[in-house]
Amino acid sequence: MNSLVGILGGMGPGATVDAMQKLIKNTPAYRDQDHIPTIAVSIPDIPDRTKCILDHSPSPLGKMIQYMKILENAGAECIIIPCNTAHYWFNELKQHTQVEMISIIDTACQVIQDRKISQVGLLATTATITARIYQNNLAEKGIDCHIPTEEEQTRVMESIYAYKAGDLATAHDMLSPIKDRLLQSGVEKIILGCTELPLILENEIQTAPENYIDATEELIKKTVEWYFSHAHRSEIAA
Amino acid sequence: MNSLVGILGGMGPGATVDAMQKLIKNTPAYRDQDHIPTIAVSIPDIPDRTKCILDHSPSPLGKMIQYMKILENAGAECIIIPCNTAHYWFNELKQHTQVEMISIIDTACQVIQDRKISQVGLLATTATITARIYQNNLAEKGIDCHIPTEEEQTRVMESIYAYKAGDLATAHDMLSPIKDRLLQSGVEKIILGCTELPLILENEIQTAPENYIDATEELIKKTVEWYFSHAHRSEIAA
Repeated sequence: MNSLVGILGGMGPGATVDAMQKLIKNTPAYRDQDHIPTIAVSIPDIPDRTKCILDHSPSPLGKMIQYMKILENAGAECIIIPCNTAHYWFNELKQHTQVEMISIIDTACQVIQDRKISQVGLLATTATITARIYQNNLAEKGIDCHIPTEEEQTRVMESIYAYKAGDLATAHDMLSPIKDRLLQSGVEKIILGCTELPLILENEIQTAPENYIDATEELIKKTVEWYFSHAHRSEIAA
Repeated sequence: MNSLVGILGGMGPGATVDAMQKLIKNTPAYRDQDHIPTIAVSIPDIPDRTKCILDHSPSPLGKMIQYMKILENAGAECIIIPCNTAHYWFNELKQHTQVEMISIIDTACQVIQDRKISQVGLLATTATITARIYQNNLAEKGIDCHIPTEEEQTRVMESIYAYKAGDLATAHDMLSPIKDRLLQSGVEKIILGCTELPLILENEIQTAPENYIDATEELIKKTVEWYFSHAHRSEIAA
Protein backbone atom coordinates (compact mmCIF):
# COMPACT_ATOMS: atom_id res chain seq x y z
CA MET A 1 0.00 0.00 0.00
CA ASN A 2 1.19 3.53 -0.78
CA SER A 3 1.03 6.36 1.77
CA LEU A 4 -2.33 6.42 3.50
CA VAL A 5 -4.23 9.71 3.89
CA GLY A 6 -6.39 9.99 7.01
CA ILE A 7 -9.49 12.16 7.09
CA LEU A 8 -10.71 13.26 10.51
CA GLY A 9 -14.30 13.90 9.46
CA GLY A 10 -17.87 13.99 10.64
CA MET A 11 -17.78 17.78 11.10
CA GLY A 12 -20.13 17.46 9.33
CA PRO A 13 -20.58 14.19 7.45
CA GLY A 14 -21.58 15.98 4.22
CA ALA A 15 -18.35 17.98 4.25
CA THR A 16 -16.38 14.76 4.75
CA VAL A 17 -17.97 13.21 1.67
CA ASP A 18 -17.34 16.45 -0.26
CA ALA A 19 -13.64 16.29 0.65
CA MET A 20 -13.44 12.63 -0.46
CA GLN A 21 -15.21 13.48 -3.73
CA LYS A 22 -12.76 16.33 -4.33
CA LEU A 23 -9.85 13.99 -3.58
CA ILE A 24 -11.06 11.66 -6.34
CA LYS A 25 -11.63 14.55 -8.77
CA ASN A 26 -8.17 16.03 -8.17
CA THR A 27 -6.28 12.73 -8.56
CA PRO A 28 -5.02 11.77 -12.02
CA ALA A 29 -6.39 8.22 -12.23
CA TYR A 30 -7.42 5.82 -14.96
CA ARG A 31 -8.46 2.87 -12.80
CA ASP A 32 -9.39 2.22 -9.17
CA GLN A 33 -5.82 1.29 -8.26
CA ASP A 34 -4.47 4.75 -9.26
CA HIS A 35 -6.46 6.51 -6.53
CA ILE A 36 -5.06 7.76 -3.22
CA PRO A 37 -5.43 5.31 -0.30
CA THR A 38 -7.74 6.98 2.17
CA ILE A 39 -9.24 6.22 5.54
CA ALA A 40 -12.02 8.44 6.81
CA VAL A 41 -13.53 8.49 10.28
CA SER A 42 -16.86 10.24 10.25
CA ILE A 43 -18.02 9.87 13.84
CA PRO A 44 -20.22 12.91 14.28
CA ASP A 45 -20.75 12.83 18.05
CA ILE A 46 -17.89 15.34 18.34
CA PRO A 47 -19.35 18.31 20.29
CA ASP A 48 -20.34 21.38 18.27
CA ARG A 49 -17.20 23.43 17.54
CA THR A 50 -18.93 26.79 17.23
CA LYS A 51 -20.92 26.42 20.45
CA CYS A 52 -17.78 25.51 22.37
CA ILE A 53 -15.83 28.55 21.17
CA LEU A 54 -18.70 31.00 21.64
CA ASP A 55 -20.58 29.60 24.66
CA HIS A 56 -17.89 27.56 26.42
CA SER A 57 -20.00 24.41 26.01
CA PRO A 58 -18.15 21.00 26.12
CA SER A 59 -14.95 20.90 24.08
CA PRO A 60 -14.63 18.71 20.97
CA LEU A 61 -10.88 18.26 21.55
CA GLY A 62 -11.02 14.96 23.47
CA LYS A 63 -13.13 13.18 20.86
CA MET A 64 -11.06 14.65 18.02
CA ILE A 65 -7.90 13.24 19.61
CA GLN A 66 -9.62 9.88 20.16
CA TYR A 67 -10.76 9.61 16.52
CA MET A 68 -7.41 10.89 15.22
CA LYS A 69 -5.81 7.94 17.04
CA ILE A 70 -7.97 5.56 14.95
CA LEU A 71 -6.39 7.07 11.83
CA GLU A 72 -2.92 6.88 13.35
CA ASN A 73 -3.38 3.23 14.41
CA ALA A 74 -4.61 2.36 10.91
CA GLY A 75 -1.33 3.67 9.50
CA ALA A 76 -2.28 7.13 8.22
CA GLU A 77 0.83 9.12 7.26
CA CYS A 78 -0.94 12.43 6.76
CA ILE A 79 -4.09 13.68 8.46
CA ILE A 80 -6.48 16.33 7.22
CA ILE A 81 -9.61 17.77 8.84
CA PRO A 82 -12.35 19.00 6.51
CA CYS A 83 -13.73 21.47 9.07
CA ASN A 84 -12.38 25.01 9.30
CA THR A 85 -13.73 25.73 12.80
CA ALA A 86 -12.03 22.60 14.17
CA HIS A 87 -8.71 24.23 13.25
CA TYR A 88 -9.10 26.37 16.38
CA TRP A 89 -7.60 23.27 18.05
CA PHE A 90 -5.14 22.46 15.23
CA ASN A 91 -1.95 23.07 17.21
CA GLU A 92 -3.23 21.06 20.18
CA LEU A 93 -4.16 18.19 17.85
CA LYS A 94 -0.68 18.31 16.31
CA GLN A 95 0.85 17.89 19.74
CA HIS A 96 -1.07 14.62 20.13
CA THR A 97 0.23 12.91 17.01
CA GLN A 98 3.47 12.08 15.26
CA VAL A 99 1.64 12.03 11.93
CA GLU A 100 1.99 14.93 9.48
CA MET A 101 -1.05 17.22 9.35
CA ILE A 102 -2.06 19.73 6.69
CA SER A 103 -3.97 22.81 7.86
CA ILE A 104 -6.94 23.94 5.78
CA ILE A 105 -6.42 27.51 7.04
CA ASP A 106 -2.70 27.75 6.23
CA THR A 107 -3.31 26.18 2.83
CA ALA A 108 -6.14 28.54 1.85
CA CYS A 109 -4.26 31.63 3.11
CA GLN A 110 -1.12 30.60 1.22
CA VAL A 111 -3.14 30.27 -2.01
CA ILE A 112 -4.55 33.78 -1.47
CA GLN A 113 -1.04 35.18 -0.99
CA ASP A 114 0.36 33.26 -3.99
CA ARG A 115 -2.41 34.66 -6.20
CA LYS A 116 -1.55 38.19 -4.99
CA ILE A 117 -5.07 38.87 -3.75
CA SER A 118 -5.10 41.90 -1.47
CA GLN A 119 -8.82 42.24 -0.65
CA VAL A 120 -10.64 39.07 0.29
CA GLY A 121 -14.09 38.36 1.72
CA LEU A 122 -14.65 35.68 4.34
CA LEU A 123 -17.68 33.46 4.84
CA ALA A 124 -17.27 31.13 7.82
CA THR A 125 -18.89 30.09 11.09
CA THR A 126 -19.35 32.75 13.72
CA ALA A 127 -16.74 30.92 15.80
CA THR A 128 -14.15 30.96 12.99
CA ILE A 129 -14.79 34.70 12.55
CA THR A 130 -14.85 35.55 16.28
CA ALA A 131 -11.68 33.55 17.00
CA ARG A 132 -10.03 35.35 14.03
CA ILE A 133 -8.78 31.98 12.69
CA TYR A 134 -8.46 33.36 9.15
CA GLN A 135 -8.04 37.07 9.91
CA ASN A 136 -4.85 36.68 11.97
CA ASN A 137 -3.21 34.52 9.31
CA LEU A 138 -4.20 36.92 6.52
CA ALA A 139 -3.11 40.01 8.50
CA GLU A 140 0.40 38.55 8.84
CA LYS A 141 0.48 38.37 5.04
CA GLY A 142 -0.79 41.96 4.66
CA ILE A 143 -4.10 40.85 3.15
CA ASP A 144 -7.29 42.78 3.98
CA CYS A 145 -10.10 40.49 5.11
CA HIS A 146 -13.71 41.66 4.84
CA ILE A 147 -16.27 39.91 7.02
CA PRO A 148 -20.09 40.07 7.05
CA THR A 149 -21.88 42.53 9.34
CA GLU A 150 -23.04 41.15 12.68
CA GLU A 151 -26.60 40.77 11.37
CA GLU A 152 -25.38 39.06 8.19
CA GLN A 153 -23.14 36.75 10.23
CA THR A 154 -26.13 35.57 12.27
CA ARG A 155 -27.75 34.53 8.99
CA VAL A 156 -24.55 32.83 7.71
CA MET A 157 -24.57 30.67 10.84
CA GLU A 158 -28.30 29.96 10.50
CA SER A 159 -27.63 28.94 6.90
CA ILE A 160 -24.91 26.48 7.95
CA TYR A 161 -27.16 24.92 10.60
CA ALA A 162 -30.03 24.72 8.07
CA TYR A 163 -27.75 22.80 5.69
CA LYS A 164 -26.69 20.44 8.47
CA ALA A 165 -30.41 19.88 9.19
CA GLY A 166 -30.87 18.79 5.57
CA ASP A 167 -32.59 21.98 4.34
CA LEU A 168 -30.41 23.04 1.41
CA ALA A 169 -33.00 25.42 -0.08
CA THR A 170 -33.30 27.53 3.08
CA ALA A 171 -29.54 27.42 3.60
CA HIS A 172 -28.98 28.69 0.07
CA ASP A 173 -31.60 31.47 0.23
CA MET A 174 -30.15 32.81 3.48
CA LEU A 175 -26.55 32.79 2.28
CA SER A 176 -26.84 33.96 -1.31
CA PRO A 177 -27.61 37.68 -0.71
CA ILE A 178 -24.72 37.94 1.75
CA LYS A 179 -22.17 36.62 -0.75
CA ASP A 180 -23.65 39.04 -3.34
CA ARG A 181 -23.21 41.98 -0.97
CA LEU A 182 -19.63 40.94 -0.15
CA LEU A 183 -18.76 40.58 -3.85
CA GLN A 184 -20.27 43.99 -4.60
CA SER A 185 -18.25 45.57 -1.77
CA GLY A 186 -15.10 45.25 -3.85
CA VAL A 187 -13.39 42.08 -2.63
CA GLU A 188 -11.54 40.11 -5.29
CA LYS A 189 -12.66 36.73 -4.04
CA ILE A 190 -14.59 35.18 -1.17
CA ILE A 191 -13.04 32.50 1.02
CA LEU A 192 -15.52 29.68 1.60
CA GLY A 193 -14.10 29.14 5.07
CA CYS A 194 -16.55 26.54 6.36
CA THR A 195 -16.73 23.14 4.68
CA GLU A 196 -20.53 23.29 4.37
CA LEU A 197 -20.40 26.49 2.27
CA PRO A 198 -19.19 24.93 -1.02
CA LEU A 199 -22.17 22.57 -0.74
CA ILE A 200 -24.65 25.40 -0.11
CA LEU A 201 -23.24 27.52 -2.97
CA GLU A 202 -22.54 24.62 -5.35
CA ASN A 203 -24.38 26.16 -8.30
CA GLU A 204 -22.77 29.59 -7.89
CA ILE A 205 -19.30 28.04 -7.73
CA GLN A 206 -19.97 26.12 -10.94
CA THR A 207 -21.20 29.29 -12.67
CA ALA A 208 -18.52 31.69 -11.41
CA PRO A 209 -15.63 29.73 -9.87
CA GLU A 210 -13.37 32.79 -10.20
CA ASN A 211 -15.29 34.46 -7.34
CA TYR A 212 -14.33 31.91 -4.70
CA ILE A 213 -11.50 30.30 -2.78
CA ASP A 214 -12.97 26.95 -1.73
CA ALA A 215 -10.88 26.06 1.32
CA THR A 216 -11.85 22.37 1.03
CA GLU A 217 -10.71 22.22 -2.59
CA GLU A 218 -7.39 23.91 -1.72
CA LEU A 219 -6.82 21.52 1.19
CA ILE A 220 -7.43 18.58 -1.12
CA LYS A 221 -5.12 19.89 -3.85
CA LYS A 222 -2.40 20.28 -1.22
CA THR A 223 -3.09 16.73 -0.01
CA VAL A 224 -2.76 15.32 -3.54
CA GLU A 225 0.52 17.25 -3.87
CA TRP A 226 1.71 15.82 -0.54
CA TYR A 227 0.78 12.32 -1.65
CA PHE A 228 2.68 12.39 -4.92
CA SER A 229 5.78 14.09 -3.48
CA HIS A 230 5.72 11.60 -0.61
CA ALA A 231 5.32 8.57 -2.91
CA HIS A 232 8.26 9.89 -4.90
CA ARG A 233 10.40 10.28 -1.77
CA SER A 234 9.50 6.72 -0.70
CA GLU A 235 10.64 5.34 -4.05
CA ILE A 236 13.98 7.12 -3.74
CA ALA A 237 14.39 5.79 -0.21
CA ALA A 238 13.48 2.23 -1.26
CA MET B 1 -20.03 6.64 20.59
CA ASN B 2 -22.99 4.70 19.15
CA SER B 3 -22.54 1.59 16.98
CA LEU B 4 -19.89 2.17 14.34
CA VAL B 5 -20.55 1.19 10.73
CA GLY B 6 -17.49 0.12 8.73
CA ILE B 7 -17.30 0.56 4.98
CA LEU B 8 -14.84 -1.64 3.12
CA GLY B 9 -14.47 0.61 0.11
CA GLY B 10 -12.16 1.68 -2.67
CA MET B 11 -13.85 -0.66 -5.17
CA GLY B 12 -14.03 1.93 -6.59
CA PRO B 13 -13.49 5.13 -4.62
CA GLY B 14 -16.42 6.88 -6.35
CA ALA B 15 -18.79 4.10 -5.30
CA THR B 16 -17.54 4.42 -1.71
CA VAL B 17 -18.34 8.12 -1.67
CA ASP B 18 -21.74 7.39 -3.24
CA ALA B 19 -22.51 4.91 -0.45
CA MET B 20 -21.49 7.46 2.20
CA GLN B 21 -23.63 10.14 0.53
CA LYS B 22 -26.61 7.76 0.48
CA LEU B 23 -26.02 6.94 4.16
CA ILE B 24 -26.32 10.65 4.99
CA LYS B 25 -29.41 11.06 2.78
CA ASN B 26 -31.20 8.06 4.32
CA THR B 27 -30.52 9.03 7.96
CA PRO B 28 -33.09 11.19 9.73
CA ALA B 29 -30.80 13.92 11.12
CA TYR B 30 -31.13 17.55 12.11
CA ARG B 31 -27.55 18.19 13.19
CA ASP B 32 -24.11 16.59 12.71
CA GLN B 33 -24.44 14.59 15.92
CA ASP B 34 -27.58 12.73 14.69
CA HIS B 35 -25.66 11.03 11.84
CA ILE B 36 -24.45 7.42 11.84
CA PRO B 37 -20.84 6.94 13.02
CA THR B 38 -18.93 5.64 10.05
CA ILE B 39 -15.40 4.58 9.23
CA ALA B 40 -14.49 4.02 5.61
CA VAL B 41 -11.33 2.49 4.25
CA SER B 42 -10.89 3.34 0.60
CA ILE B 43 -7.55 1.76 -0.23
CA PRO B 44 -7.92 1.03 -3.91
CA ASP B 45 -4.86 -1.15 -4.49
CA ILE B 46 -7.15 -4.18 -4.08
CA PRO B 47 -6.66 -6.25 -7.27
CA ASP B 48 -9.37 -5.99 -9.94
CA ARG B 49 -12.28 -8.25 -8.93
CA THR B 50 -13.58 -8.88 -12.44
CA LYS B 51 -10.15 -9.78 -13.86
CA CYS B 52 -9.56 -12.25 -11.04
CA ILE B 53 -12.88 -14.06 -11.56
CA LEU B 54 -12.63 -14.15 -15.36
CA ASP B 55 -8.88 -14.45 -16.00
CA HIS B 56 -7.60 -15.97 -12.74
CA SER B 57 -5.37 -12.93 -12.17
CA PRO B 58 -4.26 -12.20 -8.54
CA SER B 59 -7.05 -12.46 -5.98
CA PRO B 60 -8.34 -9.42 -4.08
CA LEU B 61 -9.22 -11.56 -1.04
CA GLY B 62 -6.00 -11.05 0.93
CA LYS B 63 -6.13 -7.25 0.75
CA MET B 64 -9.86 -7.20 1.46
CA ILE B 65 -9.24 -9.21 4.65
CA GLN B 66 -6.35 -6.92 5.59
CA TYR B 67 -8.44 -3.75 5.17
CA MET B 68 -11.46 -5.31 6.86
CA LYS B 69 -9.21 -5.82 9.91
CA ILE B 70 -8.61 -2.04 10.03
CA LEU B 71 -12.37 -1.59 10.38
CA GLU B 72 -12.59 -4.33 12.99
CA ASN B 73 -9.68 -2.89 15.02
CA ALA B 74 -11.31 0.55 14.91
CA GLY B 75 -14.41 -0.91 16.56
CA ALA B 76 -16.78 -1.38 13.61
CA GLU B 77 -19.85 -3.39 14.64
CA CYS B 78 -21.23 -3.87 11.16
CA ILE B 79 -19.31 -4.00 7.87
CA ILE B 80 -20.66 -3.29 4.41
CA ILE B 81 -18.91 -3.48 1.03
CA PRO B 82 -20.15 -1.11 -1.68
CA CYS B 83 -18.97 -3.38 -4.52
CA ASN B 84 -21.23 -6.10 -5.91
CA THR B 85 -18.45 -8.11 -7.60
CA ALA B 86 -16.50 -8.29 -4.33
CA HIS B 87 -19.42 -10.28 -2.90
CA TYR B 88 -18.06 -13.27 -4.83
CA TRP B 89 -15.80 -13.58 -1.73
CA PHE B 90 -18.50 -12.57 0.81
CA ASN B 91 -18.67 -15.90 2.63
CA GLU B 92 -14.88 -16.14 2.84
CA LEU B 93 -14.71 -12.59 4.21
CA LYS B 94 -17.36 -13.45 6.81
CA GLN B 95 -15.22 -16.35 8.00
CA HIS B 96 -12.40 -13.89 8.74
CA THR B 97 -14.36 -11.58 11.04
CA GLN B 98 -16.56 -11.69 14.13
CA VAL B 99 -18.25 -8.48 13.01
CA GLU B 100 -21.73 -8.54 11.48
CA MET B 101 -21.78 -8.05 7.70
CA ILE B 102 -24.67 -7.06 5.44
CA SER B 103 -24.63 -8.44 1.88
CA ILE B 104 -25.55 -6.06 -0.94
CA ILE B 105 -26.68 -9.05 -3.02
CA ASP B 106 -28.97 -10.61 -0.38
CA THR B 107 -30.42 -7.18 0.44
CA ALA B 108 -31.21 -6.27 -3.17
CA CYS B 109 -32.68 -9.72 -3.94
CA GLN B 110 -34.84 -9.58 -0.81
CA VAL B 111 -36.22 -6.19 -1.87
CA ILE B 112 -37.09 -7.63 -5.31
CA GLN B 113 -38.92 -10.53 -3.68
CA ASP B 114 -40.71 -8.26 -1.18
CA ARG B 115 -41.97 -6.07 -4.03
CA LYS B 116 -43.30 -9.18 -5.83
CA ILE B 117 -41.25 -8.50 -8.96
CA SER B 118 -41.15 -11.60 -11.15
CA GLN B 119 -39.18 -10.35 -14.20
CA VAL B 120 -36.05 -8.36 -13.47
CA GLY B 121 -33.20 -7.11 -15.65
CA LEU B 122 -29.60 -7.16 -14.42
CA LEU B 123 -26.80 -4.74 -15.21
CA ALA B 124 -23.53 -5.72 -13.54
CA THR B 125 -19.88 -6.49 -14.24
CA THR B 126 -19.14 -9.42 -16.52
CA ALA B 127 -17.73 -11.24 -13.49
CA THR B 128 -20.90 -10.75 -11.43
CA ILE B 129 -22.93 -12.07 -14.38
CA THR B 130 -20.58 -14.97 -15.21
CA ALA B 131 -20.31 -16.09 -11.58
CA ARG B 132 -24.14 -15.92 -11.37
CA ILE B 133 -23.88 -13.92 -8.12
CA TYR B 134 -27.37 -12.45 -8.59
CA GLN B 135 -28.95 -15.11 -10.80
CA ASN B 136 -28.53 -17.98 -8.33
CA ASN B 137 -30.04 -15.93 -5.48
CA LEU B 138 -32.98 -14.80 -7.65
CA ALA B 139 -33.59 -18.31 -9.05
CA GLU B 140 -34.02 -19.63 -5.49
CA LYS B 141 -36.79 -17.05 -5.08
CA GLY B 142 -38.43 -18.00 -8.40
CA ILE B 143 -37.59 -14.66 -10.01
CA ASP B 144 -36.66 -14.54 -13.72
CA CYS B 145 -33.45 -12.60 -14.33
CA HIS B 146 -32.76 -11.13 -17.78
CA ILE B 147 -29.16 -10.31 -18.63
CA PRO B 148 -27.65 -8.39 -21.56
CA THR B 149 -26.51 -10.27 -24.68
CA GLU B 150 -22.84 -11.17 -24.82
CA GLU B 151 -22.13 -8.22 -27.12
CA GLU B 152 -24.07 -5.83 -24.87
CA GLN B 153 -22.28 -7.18 -21.80
CA THR B 154 -18.90 -6.34 -23.34
CA ARG B 155 -20.11 -2.76 -23.64
CA VAL B 156 -21.49 -2.70 -20.07
CA MET B 157 -18.04 -3.65 -18.83
CA GLU B 158 -16.35 -1.08 -21.08
CA SER B 159 -18.76 1.51 -19.70
CA ILE B 160 -17.82 0.65 -16.10
CA TYR B 161 -14.09 0.88 -16.87
CA ALA B 162 -14.66 4.20 -18.71
CA TYR B 163 -16.36 5.58 -15.59
CA LYS B 164 -13.50 4.39 -13.39
CA ALA B 165 -11.13 6.16 -15.82
CA GLY B 166 -13.03 9.40 -15.21
CA ASP B 167 -14.91 9.47 -18.53
CA LEU B 168 -18.55 9.74 -17.45
CA ALA B 169 -19.82 10.86 -20.88
CA THR B 170 -18.48 7.79 -22.71
CA ALA B 171 -19.61 5.51 -19.87
CA HIS B 172 -23.12 6.92 -20.10
CA ASP B 173 -23.38 6.75 -23.90
CA MET B 174 -22.28 3.11 -23.92
CA LEU B 175 -24.66 2.00 -21.18
CA SER B 176 -27.81 3.97 -21.95
CA PRO B 177 -29.02 2.01 -25.05
CA ILE B 178 -28.53 -1.29 -23.23
CA LYS B 179 -30.74 -0.29 -20.31
CA ASP B 180 -33.32 0.98 -22.85
CA ARG B 181 -33.32 -2.38 -24.66
CA LEU B 182 -33.63 -4.27 -21.36
CA LEU B 183 -36.55 -2.07 -20.23
CA GLN B 184 -38.30 -2.57 -23.61
CA SER B 185 -37.85 -6.35 -23.34
CA GLY B 186 -40.54 -6.46 -20.66
CA VAL B 187 -38.67 -6.53 -17.35
CA GLU B 188 -40.37 -4.69 -14.50
CA LYS B 189 -37.19 -3.16 -13.13
CA ILE B 190 -33.43 -3.25 -13.71
CA ILE B 191 -31.05 -4.14 -10.89
CA LEU B 192 -28.10 -1.74 -10.87
CA GLY B 193 -25.83 -4.54 -9.68
CA CYS B 194 -22.50 -2.73 -9.83
CA THR B 195 -21.86 0.27 -7.59
CA GLU B 196 -20.59 2.40 -10.49
CA LEU B 197 -23.90 2.06 -12.40
CA PRO B 198 -26.02 4.44 -10.26
CA LEU B 199 -23.32 7.06 -10.90
CA ILE B 200 -23.32 6.47 -14.67
CA LEU B 201 -27.14 6.52 -14.87
CA GLU B 202 -27.66 9.27 -12.25
CA ASN B 203 -29.90 11.41 -14.47
CA GLU B 204 -32.07 8.49 -15.61
CA ILE B 205 -32.58 7.37 -12.01
CA GLN B 206 -33.67 10.87 -11.00
CA THR B 207 -36.10 11.02 -13.94
CA ALA B 208 -37.56 7.50 -13.63
CA PRO B 209 -36.58 5.97 -10.28
CA GLU B 210 -39.39 3.40 -10.64
CA ASN B 211 -37.34 1.61 -13.35
CA TYR B 212 -34.43 0.68 -11.09
CA ILE B 213 -33.34 -1.25 -8.05
CA ASP B 214 -30.20 0.58 -6.95
CA ALA B 215 -28.33 -2.11 -4.99
CA THR B 216 -26.18 0.53 -3.22
CA GLU B 217 -29.27 2.42 -2.05
CA GLU B 218 -30.89 -0.80 -0.79
CA LEU B 219 -27.70 -1.80 1.06
CA ILE B 220 -27.61 1.61 2.73
CA LYS B 221 -31.30 1.53 3.72
CA LYS B 222 -30.67 -1.87 5.31
CA THR B 223 -27.62 -0.46 7.10
CA VAL B 224 -29.64 2.46 8.51
CA GLU B 225 -32.25 -0.06 9.66
CA TRP B 226 -29.52 -2.18 11.28
CA TYR B 227 -28.10 0.90 13.02
CA PHE B 228 -31.36 2.03 14.57
CA SER B 229 -32.50 -1.46 15.62
CA HIS B 230 -29.03 -2.05 17.09
CA ALA B 231 -28.98 1.29 18.95
CA HIS B 232 -32.40 0.37 20.36
CA ARG B 233 -31.16 -3.06 21.48
CA SER B 234 -28.15 -1.42 23.16
CA GLU B 235 -30.43 0.92 25.11
CA ILE B 236 -32.52 -2.00 26.34
CA ALA B 237 -29.37 -3.88 27.35
CA ALA B 238 -27.91 -0.83 29.13
